[in-house]
Amino acid sequence: MSRWQPGSRARLQTAALDLFLESGYSATTTAAIAERAGVTDRTFYRHFKDKSEVLFGDEARLEQLLVGTFDASADSTANALRTSLRALAQDFQPRRADILRRAIVIESVPDLAERELLKLRSWSHALTRLAVTRDGDDLAARAQVEVAIALFRAAFRSWTHDDDPPSLDELIAHAYTAVGHPGFSTRRGSTPSTSTGSPWKRR
Amino acid sequence: MSRWQPGSRARLQTAALDLFLESGYSATTTAAIAERAGVTDRTFYRHFKDKSEVLFGDEARLEQLLVGTFDASADSTANALRTSLRALAQDFQPRRADILRRAIVIESVPDLAERELLKLRSWSHALTRLAVTRDGDDLAARAQVEVAIALFRAAFRSWTHDDDPPSLDELIAHAYTAVGHPGFSTRRGSTPSTSTGSPWKRR
Repeated sequence: MSRWQPGSRARLQTAALDLFLESGYSATTTAAIAERAGVTDRTFYRHFKDKSEVLFGDEARLEQLLVGTFDASADSTANALRTSLRALAQDFQPRRADILRRAIVIESVPDLAERELLKLRSWSHALTRLAVTRDGDDLAARAQVEVAIALFRAAFRSWTHDDDPPSLDELIAHAYTAVGHPGFSTRRGSTPSTSTGSPWKRR
Repeated sequence: MSRWQPGSRARLQTAALDLFLESGYSATTTAAIAERAGVTDRTFYRHFKDKSEVLFGDEARLEQLLVGTFDASADSTANALRTSLRALAQDFQPRRADILRRAIVIESVPDLAERELLKLRSWSHALTRLAVTRDGDDLAARAQVEVAIALFRAAFRSWTHDDDPPSLDELIAHAYTAVGHPGFSTRRGSTPSTSTGSPWKRR
């Protein structure tokens, strides 16, 4: 097997999620993941430090997507945050099946759930540093960022727990509406407005 | 020393915070805490299961305060949440000195910081269960609760990190204003309005 065989990273991720859900996270070894993916152990360790990295290996890229999008926006903090969440939602949308399987694994293992919380905290800190620089008002900046992350979390949960949900970005828009947040007024790109006529809109 | 000596719980809490800040959390033993408080080891264990309980022993009471206040309110979910946060802020306000010292200890030890995050998650789950029952709309209820907790966290941080801050409830009001949240319109009781003229209000 070629050490540079294309797609081995994606195959390892799919194989790992299969095994985590079939046998449990703790009982799954990196050797079993490599075998299921049809690659060698060395190939596993070329892509991932350990089995938790199969679940969290995207962390740095996603934080950069959030922070980079925020930083590139000349809009108000509220609207720039909404734009960052849209970028994240658009990155997630086509990968829903694997993200849903990942969420099930993470929620089933307390250590992974804690790491997921710390990941969100790291995003929140990175965004807050930028927002404080932009706004000057520490509490206002922190409140905006914490709220954006909170709304993302709430929408993400519906996206992964509901049957046949709307798109993640529509759910984020719904969450913004539910709390009357002004960031909701930023609607850009191809996502349709959800401010009227949505079956899951209540207020 | 009488086993029912009044005030020993409060003395143990103060002694523990003193020692955690002087010597570090890990290096502080329950025996040292008891000695500093002038009570026996047995008295320590009558009040607290271990040294972490000195920091987290109020958890159940505070969750009950939040949840009970929410449950007793016939107001909208947003306003009931705001009322719950006010109750929490009023409970915290006179204890600021010890709460500030507690926050320093918790932020210095990753395991304690994680437990603090899990505590907030437990509050959030308890409130969400009630809010979902009230609203019917899962995502809207969850979004409202997550946002209320997020705003509380942001305000709490300013209250514990800023020099000579306004009251915690005023900071919560400021955080609500910063994100344009409708819960801000609920102003009750003796807390003065902060919607105009505040030096730390920016938007």
